[in-house]
Amino acid sequence: MPIDPIQQADIEALRAQSFSTRRATVPALEEILYQALPVLDHGFVRVIDYMGDDGAVVQAARVSYGRGTRKVSEDAGLIRYLMRHRHSTPFEMCEIKYHVKLPIFIARQWIRHRTANVNEISARYSILDREFYLPAPDQLAAQSAINRQGRGDVLEGDEAARVLDLLREDSMRSHAHYMELLNEDDDGKVLDESRTGLARELARMNLTLNTYTQWYWKTDLHNLLHFLSLRADSHAQYEIRVYAEVMLKTVEAWVPACYAAFRDYRLGAVTFSGAMLAVLCRMLAGETVTRESSGLGQREWAEFQATLAGSAPG
Amino acid sequence: MPIDPIQQADIEALRAQSFSTRRATVPALEEILYQALPVLDHGFVRVIDYMGDDGAVVQAARVSYGRGTRKVSEDAGLIRYLMRHRHSTPFEMCEIKYHVKLPIFIARQWIRHRTANVNEISARYSILDREFYLPAPDQLAAQSAINRQGRGDVLEGDEAARVLDLLREDSMRSHAHYMELLNEDDDGKVLDESRTGLARELARMNLTLNTYTQWYWKTDLHNLLHFLSLRADSHAQYEIRVYAEVMLKTVEAWVPACYAAFRDYRLGAVTFSGAMLAVLCRMLAGETVTRESSGLGQREWAEFQATLAGSAPG
Amino acid sequence: MPIDPIQQADIEALRAQSFSTRRATVPALEEILYQALPVLDHGFVRVIDYMGDDGAVVQAARVSYGRGTRKVSEDAGLIRYLMRHRHSTPFEMCEIKYHVKLPIFIARQWIRHRTANVNEISARYSILDREFYLPAPDQLAAQSAINRQGRGDVLEGDEAARVLDLLREDSMRSHAHYMELLNEDDDGKVLDESRTGLARELARMNLTLNTYTQWYWKTDLHNLLHFLSLRADSHAQYEIRVYAEVMLKTVEAWVPACYAAFRDYRLGAVTFSGAMLAVLCRMLAGETVTRESSGLGQREWAEFQATLAGSAPG
Amino acid sequence: MPIDPIQQADIEALRAQSFSTRRATVPALEEILYQALPVLDHGFVRVIDYMGDDGAVVQAARVSYGRGTRKVSEDAGLIRYLMRHRHSTPFEMCEIKYHVKLPIFIARQWIRHRTANVNEISARYSILDREFYLPAPDQLAAQSAINRQGRGDVLEGDEAARVLDLLREDSMRSHAHYMELLNEDDDGKVLDESRTGLARELARMNLTLNTYTQWYWKTDLHNLLHFLSLRADSHAQYEIRVYAEVMLKTVEAWVPACYAAFRDYRLGAVTFSGAMLAVLCRMLAGETVTRESSGLGQREWAEFQATLAGSAPG
Repeated sequence: MPIDPIQQADIEALRAQSFSTRRATVPALEEILYQALPVLDHGFVRVIDYMGDDGAVVQAARVSYGRGTRKVSEDAGLIRYLMRHRHSTPFEMCEIKYHVKLPIFIARQWIRHRTANVNEISARYSILDREFYLPAPDQLAAQSAINRQGRGDVLEGDEAARVLDLLREDSMRSHAHYMELLNEDDDGKVLDESRTGLARELARMNLTLNTYTQWYWKTDLHNLLHFLSLRADSHAQYEIRVYAEVMLKTVEAWVPACYAAFRDYRLGAVTFSGAMLAVLCRMLAGETVTRESSGLGQREWAEFQATLAGSAPG
Repeated sequence: MPIDPIQQADIEALRAQSFSTRRATVPALEEILYQALPVLDHGFVRVIDYMGDDGAVVQAARVSYGRGTRKVSEDAGLIRYLMRHRHSTPFEMCEIKYHVKLPIFIARQWIRHRTANVNEISARYSILDREFYLPAPDQLAAQSAINRQGRGDVLEGDEAARVLDLLREDSMRSHAHYMELLNEDDDGKVLDESRTGLARELARMNLTLNTYTQWYWKTDLHNLLHFLSLRADSHAQYEIRVYAEVMLKTVEAWVPACYAAFRDYRLGAVTFSGAMLAVLCRMLAGETVTRESSGLGQREWAEFQATLAGSAPG
Repeated sequence: MPIDPIQQADIEALRAQSFSTRRATVPALEEILYQALPVLDHGFVRVIDYMGDDGAVVQAARVSYGRGTRKVSEDAGLIRYLMRHRHSTPFEMCEIKYHVKLPIFIARQWIRHRTANVNEISARYSILDREFYLPAPDQLAAQSAINRQGRGDVLEGDEAARVLDLLREDSMRSHAHYMELLNEDDDGKVLDESRTGLARELARMNLTLNTYTQWYWKTDLHNLLHFLSLRADSHAQYEIRVYAEVMLKTVEAWVPACYAAFRDYRLGAVTFSGAMLAVLCRMLAGETVTRESSGLGQREWAEFQATLAGSAPG
Repeated sequence: MPIDPIQQADIEALRAQSFSTRRATVPALEEILYQALPVLDHGFVRVIDYMGDDGAVVQAARVSYGRGTRKVSEDAGLIRYLMRHRHSTPFEMCEIKYHVKLPIFIARQWIRHRTANVNEISARYSILDREFYLPAPDQLAAQSAINRQGRGDVLEGDEAARVLDLLREDSMRSHAHYMELLNEDDDGKVLDESRTGLARELARMNLTLNTYTQWYWKTDLHNLLHFLSLRADSHAQYEIRVYAEVMLKTVEAWVPACYAAFRDYRLGAVTFSGAMLAVLCRMLAGETVTRESSGLGQREWAEFQATLAGSAPG
C-alpha cells in the first residue's frame, strides 16, 4: 500500500484547505493537488505545488505588465509557434513540484536530469520502509535479441515464477538483515540490548536496488517537457515510462495549450537528416529509391523506413 | 515615470483578481503582488508570482506527506540549522518570479547569475523607450583612490553639472538617432516616406548603456539568497544594490523565517581563515598579536582588523 | 585593428611553446591554437585551450579504461549513433575555451547560453578601447517586411551613408565623452588637474552598444554544438552568425567525426510534426494534398512547403 | 582487485604515449595521469584529462592575450585574493576529468552535485562485476548517539563479525541470483538453454547498494573545490571522504597555488554569524561572556565554543 492512514490524513488536511490568492490558478490542477496518483506496485506521483499557467508563457514571451493574454486562439497560436521553433525560455516561466515514490534503480535514471531541484529522503537519518518493486507478470521481459538495451518477450511459466521468487526473497532477506544490522524492529525498538547496531549510513548498503525511496522534485515546464519527451518515449524503460505517463496527464491538466503543442511538435514529431530529406524529395518526385541508391547507411535506411511506416524511429 | 496609465490599468486588473487555491499562500506577499516597487529614476521591481513559503522548506527537508511543519519555533530552528550548515537544497523548493526594469549596464551584471530563468524584451522585435538612467546628484561619485573598482567622493559644482549634461545629451541624441535610423516617430509612424529604415536588430547598437530594458526573472530561494548576498553587499555597485535591497524586503514578506536566518548567518556573517582563527585564539588567551607576529599577509591583516572593528571585510 | 603589436607578441610567445603531454592531442587544432581568427571589423575568436578529441566521446560512451577506440569506422559509427539519438552526455566530455572579442549588443545575445563559463573584461576596473562595430555596406539591411525580427533589402546611396555617419559619430562622441568623464587621455594621463573624474563603473554607461568587449568563454562540446545549431542558423542575426561560422571551423579541426555527425543530423536536419508526417505519407502514396485537405494551419503549411522546397524552415 | 591485467595494459598504453602540445601542461599531474589511485577495497580514482593550470586562473581573471602571468608571487597573491573574496568565475576556467569506481550508495550521494558531466556504466547494456564494498573492521561504526547522521564507536567481536558476514553473504547471494536471472555465467555463456533470461534493465534491481559501479566525471575547478569542501569535511560520510581526500592530492599536484589558497581560506576557514562576532569582540575586550549573556541559542553556543576550541564546527 503506497499511503498509510496517517499519511492519507495529512493529504486530506492539505486538500481541505482553501486560500485566497491573486496568483494565476488552474482549477483542473487544483482538483488533483496533493493526491497520490499510483504508479507501479507501491509508487506514486503527487503534485505538491505549481506556479503559472498557459498565460504565464504568453506573458513572459511578451514581457507584458498584465497577464499578456489576448484571444485564446492567439495565445494558443503563439504557444505553438514558440514550441515549433524551440523558443524555450518562456516555458521556463512555469514551475511544478512533485512528491514521487519510486524504486532506487529508477531514481538513479531519473536523477541524471540535472536541471531540477531535489530533496530525497536520506537513509543516513531515516530507516527505509520494507517496500520493494516486484514487476507485474506481464512485465517480466527477457533481454531483447535485437536491441542491446531493450526488452524482448515476456517470460512465462516456471521461469517467470522463479524470477519473482528470487526478486522477492532477496529483497525481503536483505531488508530483514538491514533491520538486524540496525538492531531495530519495525516499531523502532531495540532488537537486542547486547548489541549497539550499525550506523544507518552503513547498514543501507545491504538493501537491494528495487527498494522504494521518495523525493520532492521540482522543475520548470521546459525541462519537464524535455524529461517527458525522453522518458515517455517508447524506448524508455517501462518502469520510468509509467511515471512519465502519469506526469503527462498532470501537464495536460495544468497547461493544456502547452501540452497540445508539445504533443504535436515533440511527442509525435520525427527528425530527418539532410540526406534523408533529399531522399524524401526524390521519392515525392516519383523516383523509386532503394537503399543502394539512397546513399544512406544500412542502419539509417532502416530507421528511415521505420519512420515512414509510422513506427517509432530506431 | 516608470509606469504609464495603460500599464497601471493592467496591473490594477491583476490585483483585483482573486482565486481560490489549495496551495501554500503568503498574505504579506499577496499584498504587494504585481505592484511596481520603484528603483532608481525609471526602474522597478514587481513580484509576479511565487511558489512555496517557509513551510515548504521544512516540508522538503522532512520529505513529508503533509505540510511538514510542527511548532513554529521548531520550524524556525530547523530553518536556522539548514542555513547555518549550508544545507541548501530545501531552500531550492521555493520559487519566485520578478518583472524588473533596469538600465542595460546593470542588466549585464545581473545576468551573470546563471541559475535563473529570463525573458528579456527583445530589441530585435520591439523599439526601446526613450528612458535612461541618470544618477542622482549624490551618486555622482569619483573613482576610488584606494579600490580599483569602487567609488570615492561625490563630484560637486561645475564638474557634477557637466557630467550630468554629457550623460543626458548623449543618451538623448543616441536615442533620437536610433528613431531616425528606424525611420519611425514615437507613435510608430514612418518619419520619411523616401527612406526604408534600418533593421531593428541593427539600429539598437546606437543606444547607450544607460538605456532601460526589462525582463521577467525567475529563480529559486537558494539562488536568490546567493544573488542577494553578493548584490546587497556594501561592495556591490550602488545601482544594482538598490534593486537587491528592494528584493530583500520582498523576501522578508514572503519567507520571514528564512529571511531571519539569512540575515543572521549570511548577511551579517564573517569568515576567518584557519590562520586568522589561530591569531584570534592567541588574542583571546591574552596575547598581544602584531601584524609581524601574526603570520598574516599585509592585506589579510588589514582585512582581519577591519572585520574585528565591525566594518565590512575588505 | 583587432590585435596590437604587444598582444601579437604575447600570442606568438604562446605559440612558440611546446610541451610534452600524455593527454589526447589534436594537431589540426594545435595548428591554430591561440591565433586570432578575425570576425567583423574589430572582433576575433581565439581557441585558448581544449580537452579531449573524437576518441574522448567514444571513451566516455564505453566507460573504458583505455582510449576506448576501436576501428576508425566503428568509432565514427558510434558517434553518428549517439548524435542521431541525442545521447548527449558523451559529447559533454570534451571541453574548449575561447577568447572572443565582440560588440556588446552581440555579447548580450551570446550570454543567454547559460551552460558556459565566462570571464568578461570589467569596465568597473578597466577602460574600454575606442573600438566600435560599424556594419559593412552590404550588411546595412532594412527591417524585414515579412519577419518581425529579420532583415530585408540592403540600404543604398544617401540613406546608407547617413546611417553609417550616425553610427560612427555617435559612437565616437560617446567614447570621447566617456574619456572626458573619466578625466583621462588615451595614455592614461589626467586630462584636467582641476577635476577628479567620474568612477569607471558609472562612466561606462555613456558608451554605445556597438562598443567592443571581450571575454574568455569555455563550454563543453554538447553545449557548444547546441549554441552553434542556433547561432549558425540562417535565422540568427548576421553579427552573431559570423562568430558561429568561425567556431564551426574550429570544431571541424578539433573533432572531425563529431562535426560530420553534427552537420548531417543537426545542421541539415528537419523536423516534421506528427500531422506533417501523416501528410507526407499521403503524398508518398500518390495523393495530391492541398492546404485545405492537409489539416495543417496556414503558417505550418507554408513552413512544410518551404522545407520540402529545400529552403530553411520558417 | 580493482584493475585486471587487460585494463592495466590499456592504462600502460596510455601512459606510454607522448604528444607535443602548445597547451598549458602540468608535469606533476602528467606524472600520475591515467593511474588508478586506490580507494576503499575495490574502488579507484583516475585522472583522465585536464585543461588549464594555476596560470589559466590568472589569465582569465585578467582577460589577457598571453598567459596573463607575472611574477609567481603576484600570481599567487591574485589567486588568494580571488579565493578569499569568492570571485569564483576564474576558477571555472580549469577543467578536470576523472574515471571513478565506487559503490552505488556512494554514487548516489556524489551525483547530487549537479554541475558536472557524467557517463556511468549502464546496467541496461552491461553486466555489473561481482565486486562489493565491505567495510574494513575499523570502519564498522555504530550509529552516533548524539548526531542523527553520524557514526559512533566501532563495533567489535561477535557483532562485528556478524555484520561483515551478513553484508558479504547478501551481496554474494544477490549477485549470484542476478547472474541466474540473466541466465549467464561469468564468461557470458548461457547457463541454461531451456531459459531465456531476464532483461538486464530488470535483473539489476536484485543487486545490493554496495555493488561497485564506475563513471567518467568531469567538472571545473570551482565546482570541484566546492565538492571537496563538502566531501572532504569531517562531517562527510567516511566512504565518500576517502575519495575526496585522494582527489585533494590530485588538485595539489595540478594547481598548487589554488590548492594552497583553498586550504587556507576554505578547508581551514570558519564562519561566525553577526551575533557570534559581537560576542567575540566582547571577549577580546576582556569581558567574560557566558551562554546566558551571549544571546546565542544553546546549539549555536556549543558550535561557537567548539570552533574556538579548534574542533570542527558543529
